[in-house]
Amino acid sequence: MTATIHRMPRTGAPSLQPMMNLVAEDMNAVNSVILARMQSRIPLIPELAGHLIAGGGKRLRPMLTLAAARLLDYGGTRHHKLAAAVEFIHTATLLHDDVVDGSAMRRGKQTANLIWGNNASVLVGDFLFSRAFELMVEDGSLKVLKILSHASAVIAEGEVNQLTAQRRIETDEDQYLDIIGAKTAALFAAASRISAVVAERPDAEELALDAYGRNLGIAFQLVDDAIDYVSDGATMGKDTGDDFRDGKITLPVILAYARGSDADRKFWKDAMSGLHGENADLNHAQALLRQTQAIDDTLARARHYGQRAIDTIAMFANGAAKDALIEAVEFAVARAY
Amino acid sequence: MTATIHRMPRTGAPSLQPMMNLVAEDMNAVNSVILARMQSRIPLIPELAGHLIAGGGKRLRPMLTLAAARLLDYGGTRHHKLAAAVEFIHTATLLHDDVVDGSAMRRGKQTANLIWGNNASVLVGDFLFSRAFELMVEDGSLKVLKILSHASAVIAEGEVNQLTAQRRIETDEDQYLDIIGAKTAALFAAASRISAVVAERPDAEELALDAYGRNLGIAFQLVDDAIDYVSDGATMGKDTGDDFRDGKITLPVILAYARGSDADRKFWKDAMSGLHGENADLNHAQALLRQTQAIDDTLARARHYGQRAIDTIAMFANGAAKDALIEAVEFAVARAY
Repeated sequence: MTATIHRMPRTGAPSLQPMMNLVAEDMNAVNSVILARMQSRIPLIPELAGHLIAGGGKRLRPMLTLAAARLLDYGGTRHHKLAAAVEFIHTATLLHDDVVDGSAMRRGKQTANLIWGNNASVLVGDFLFSRAFELMVEDGSLKVLKILSHASAVIAEGEVNQLTAQRRIETDEDQYLDIIGAKTAALFAAASRISAVVAERPDAEELALDAYGRNLGIAFQLVDDAIDYVSDGATMGKDTGDDFRDGKITLPVILAYARGSDADRKFWKDAMSGLHGENADLNHAQALLRQTQAIDDTLARARHYGQRAIDTIAMFANGAAKDALIEAVEFAVARAY
Repeated sequence: MTATIHRMPRTGAPSLQPMMNLVAEDMNAVNSVILARMQSRIPLIPELAGHLIAGGGKRLRPMLTLAAARLLDYGGTRHHKLAAAVEFIHTATLLHDDVVDGSAMRRGKQTANLIWGNNASVLVGDFLFSRAFELMVEDGSLKVLKILSHASAVIAEGEVNQLTAQRRIETDEDQYLDIIGAKTAALFAAASRISAVVAERPDAEELALDAYGRNLGIAFQLVDDAIDYVSDGATMGKDTGDDFRDGKITLPVILAYARGSDADRKFWKDAMSGLHGENADLNHAQALLRQTQAIDDTLARARHYGQRAIDTIAMFANGAAKDALIEAVEFAVARAY
């Protein structure tokens, strides 16, 4: 006899559903905060923000805050405001990203910059970002403020780094990991970590949750970058080949370039510098990615970080919360199949 | 005999020099913080930020923080970091403003968006904004964080409000005051107020300094908006007629429109909606502004708010700091002459 609780074997593909079920009630509270605090006497603000916020996002980052709080048996409600702040920071970066990338589609809908213009997107992003800090200040934890203000600076640094690397085929896997670690994983890490702060848990647990979020975030972005070459717009909610046309040097390209013939490398170099923007070129790129197994190996890398994420939370008690956090990782890495 | 100290009668035009002298040593410390904290391992960040930050700005907002601290006889150094945070918030909004307005010139130099592109300006602005919050968190005053996060949200709201009002000739003086109160005066108010927080002075003094900054900020923006129609580029450091071409409804336009003939009103309506962008049209606009005394009366409004700013600090002890704060107001309202 042993007290260890084993996870039930799962039938079917991994899903976010267990995590969504776990935090459903808390998420209602978070949604109320989000709705209340995106309001403004300037009507364009809730109109534009609502388009994106109500637009079918998974609320993955605030969900991590809520699920981590469950894992720690936190019984309070402080994390509701903080999870809303996390979602506001994320929404602000999405609004600015879509301006920077000139994106036309997000979550299966037209982007805010396409509907209301770049200017409105920049300014409403600024508003949501400020509002996020107001929410954190209301909570009053300087430690949470430190974690999230630092994450915000790291995200912006990562975005600038990505801009610098754009169209530069010399970008290597280290620089790529550096970029996605900053632009994506930093907020996943902070979102997971802050629950340990409000639950007043020891540093080791805070750091474990930080590492969980960081590794999950890297896995998530790796899969996103693979999907950009294999999915159709309907599955993905945004345009396939966006990264290709924008000359974003993601891991699939880095691997295909490193493994390709001289002719292939010339193709990638030209394509990333903006010489190939046609559908035929995207088809050729996809063929090269298949030949070099670049997509498969990008997904293998994602599984590596996913496994690390799962291992970081081994120290916590087994149960529904831990199972949900593990399955969320499995879902994140399995999305491309 | 009386103990009241009277201000020395001044010879010549009012100037910022007394305030600059008053805070010179503190400003060196602030500049060190600014230089140290705009650094990043991503070279584009200090390069772009430095272009604007080292680009001959008056550092008026951090100067208010420092001068207010002198007024209160504050003996510490906490305000150095906070003044740097104020300047970072201001710089971030300038970077985003110039993107939103498509500006080509600022402080007599090409704008960052023109040199490095809109994308870099948006993202470096985000970085500086996050860095501002990191500085405030390091200081550790939740009250200061509350004041500045709220001011940031109000600024963004004001910018969106201005965007909404753009090209709408129906915008009236109340809405205009609402816009400049948010986009400009909120940060002047917060910059002045936070010194009372770090100096641990009573609420009444905090509110007096807030009102000083707010009224000064409104006066300052009124004069700026007048200058946009009367100055040449060399005096102003940015292009004359920018507001005219952008269809920004500022007080000179509101007054000239209200006081004009039917033909004049048609001209303004067309011009603000973007039908007139030629130099000849700007000349006609300037003639109408003269006929209706719209510039003079905009400056009279500025003097009104300037006087209010001066009266708000009557409660504080006379001396060099108070004199400098008063002369800064007189300088702000006299700039257009």
